[in-house]
Amino acid sequence: MKKPHVVVLGAGFGGLECCRHLSEEDVNITLVDRQNHHLFQPLLYQVATCGLSMPDIAKPIRSIFTRKKNLSILMQEVESIDLDQKKVTLSTQELNYDYLVIALGAVTGYFGNDQWAEFAPGLKSLDDAARIRREILYAFERAEVVDDPTEHQRLLNIVVVGGGPTGVELAGAFAELTNHVMAEDFQKINPREARVILIEAAPKILGMFPEPLPQQAYDQLRALGVEIRLNTPVKDIRKYTVELEDETIEAANIIWAAGVQAEPITRDLSIEKDRGGRIIVEKDCSVPKYPEVFAIGDIASMTDARNTKVPGVSPGAIQMGSHVAGIINRETGDEHPFPSGTRSHFVYWDKGSMATIGRSAAVASVAGLKMSGFIAWVLWLAVHLLFLVGFKNKTSVLLQWFYAYVRYRRGARIITGLEKLAHSN
Amino acid sequence: MKKPHVVVLGAGFGGLECCRHLSEEDVNITLVDRQNHHLFQPLLYQVATCGLSMPDIAKPIRSIFTRKKNLSILMQEVESIDLDQKKVTLSTQELNYDYLVIALGAVTGYFGNDQWAEFAPGLKSLDDAARIRREILYAFERAEVVDDPTEHQRLLNIVVVGGGPTGVELAGAFAELTNHVMAEDFQKINPREARVILIEAAPKILGMFPEPLPQQAYDQLRALGVEIRLNTPVKDIRKYTVELEDETIEAANIIWAAGVQAEPITRDLSIEKDRGGRIIVEKDCSVPKYPEVFAIGDIASMTDARNTKVPGVSPGAIQMGSHVAGIINRETGDEHPFPSGTRSHFVYWDKGSMATIGRSAAVASVAGLKMSGFIAWVLWLAVHLLFLVGFKNKTSVLLQWFYAYVRYRRGARIITGLEKLAHSN
Repeated sequence: MKKPHVVVLGAGFGGLECCRHLSEEDVNITLVDRQNHHLFQPLLYQVATCGLSMPDIAKPIRSIFTRKKNLSILMQEVESIDLDQKKVTLSTQELNYDYLVIALGAVTGYFGNDQWAEFAPGLKSLDDAARIRREILYAFERAEVVDDPTEHQRLLNIVVVGGGPTGVELAGAFAELTNHVMAEDFQKINPREARVILIEAAPKILGMFPEPLPQQAYDQLRALGVEIRLNTPVKDIRKYTVELEDETIEAANIIWAAGVQAEPITRDLSIEKDRGGRIIVEKDCSVPKYPEVFAIGDIASMTDARNTKVPGVSPGAIQMGSHVAGIINRETGDEHPFPSGTRSHFVYWDKGSMATIGRSAAVASVAGLKMSGFIAWVLWLAVHLLFLVGFKNKTSVLLQWFYAYVRYRRGARIITGLEKLAHSN
Repeated sequence: MKKPHVVVLGAGFGGLECCRHLSEEDVNITLVDRQNHHLFQPLLYQVATCGLSMPDIAKPIRSIFTRKKNLSILMQEVESIDLDQKKVTLSTQELNYDYLVIALGAVTGYFGNDQWAEFAPGLKSLDDAARIRREILYAFERAEVVDDPTEHQRLLNIVVVGGGPTGVELAGAFAELTNHVMAEDFQKINPREARVILIEAAPKILGMFPEPLPQQAYDQLRALGVEIRLNTPVKDIRKYTVELEDETIEAANIIWAAGVQAEPITRDLSIEKDRGGRIIVEKDCSVPKYPEVFAIGDIASMTDARNTKVPGVSPGAIQMGSHVAGIINRETGDEHPFPSGTRSHFVYWDKGSMATIGRSAAVASVAGLKMSGFIAWVLWLAVHLLFLVGFKNKTSVLLQWFYAYVRYRRGARIITGLEKLAHSN
């Protein structure tokens, strides 16, 4: 008898975890991703800010599943999903499925202002990180030779839009980069001229953290020299320009960390979605009316069995991936054939949140405990090293962090892909 | 009194060494490079073959000269050189010099067949290495899903043109990559199908090495499964096709390692050059009739005081850089003002040559000693670690090599820059 075919779209945290837990005997699995690597997204900001190099936080998908014989990996773009025909169309082939797990994640979202994307890139892929790193390092190089004071200042300004964890981590890392790298490496640039400006529409940064952590994060960022604008929505973004309510900031580098939306493939699906395009799933993570289709991770809008809205973070995706694998295993296994309808409901386990701000500065909220400063930073380091298991070389990453900590150095300060520079003069 | 201005073009091995040795007191130095990093070129093939990541072999130029107060660094393209006006034109500014050191190195050379460049890229920069890595990994991914046997085989073929050290090192590393990575990571691809073909016009590979090393290198490459064509000049290269005397090879990846020529800027200089565009310099490394201008490294054609033709290798560039700095220091220093005309002649010190072929396989010729196999490989490892001093993290590189040695792993197997793929279907 032919084994049921499970197609998993996306090799992010959710898709990987699902594949890991799917049975080796009872199903055939096809995992599809447009990239050949799984990306450790929580550390992507470190690549953008020259702290780590790309292979440190990316792992070839094939090397993760070397020993899983019932799993095929296809590096293909997902073109469309036909829920009624149970068919997925990829760049060069079609797949029929018995079960489908949609785990395609999120992309940078501009709340209807897609024209800003060109001037304020987001940070969702290695190529995004490489672009940001290249543009910022190159702006410093330009500032070193430009005499016009307005142009000089513009080249040294970095604006980060969005005071969530990504924005806070980026702003802190940029401040350290400019404070130390510029002071040591450049002759004409005065490091005090370089400005890092963090813009947040809400009254506080890190709004999802319990008090007093948002305030402590604010203080730690200020101590690094980051200028923070609260209650400040962005009016418009043009080339090198951010327009606020009563201020216009010129900056060669504007980074968008203010929002994400579901991978656009959901637009073509006639199922219920939230404003960000996320598929509103049932309590078992399945798509309404299509019990053989699941959506997990950032592409899903899930309110769990305890009525908790699952946040768009990696633990949420991982837990949903494992939950869905459990359901599929039970329904396809010989020994315990559960009819559908008796599926278990997903319960999100909140492991806490943390954000790093700089060298020995961070905030963390774990199991009711709130920490900030050095102790939160050590915890952040420990957790991230733990989760980097299987990535290129944990020891290598640890060494680089240690080196950066002691010496204030950024080893990955390399500009590549010059032909892709936005401002080429 | 204004200090003499020394302009050094190029931050390769020669330019860097010259800057290192130039006086801190007696001159002002401007170092110009189109990149922001110095590249450890001898290990570039490891980035192309997924053994190392980019920052492992590249170092920000600014971080090398943090403490040299009389040195300015400009990240600019050199547009032209006016030897009579003593002036260099860069992308956005001009420099007047008292001394000029041209150390711009070499680019891939196709012996008049520049149309081959599109189909058979060379390996001279980080972007070249990233391109080769991307195309080869992506060809494997395509081979996994393509059913047409001709297309499938073409995707698995890698042709390396040129049996010098770069070609030999690339071919060996590709053979290891395909043997081990494909065997473990892919389901449909049979690793025995993958072919690595090394093409050399001369009767032997590594022709510059003393016998029996070329034969030993040949045997070691064959043992890795590399097919070698000797006495086989390339007739033509088209898209995915290499045309030989009596054979046509289809390959998705064709790498050109058969030759280099001087950086094209020399074309516009009305001075004597060799066939590869290299500036034929005097015994003191100066350009004939322009004693204040020196050319060093791969852009120079130098026959030294003992009538030895200096090869285009990093020790040659380093020694010339230090020699030229010595001359400039003597002529500009207060204490020993030597008139020109009494300049010392350059003498090349041949430190030997080595090429690595694979895991515990290499050939080396040092101080009359000839080695091959494991002992040559250990020597290669030791020398390269020694010379990587100051690069990102020697320990990190060593760990990666150790890991790769023990586990046959390639950590840097990451495809980035997908939008730049040549074959996008």
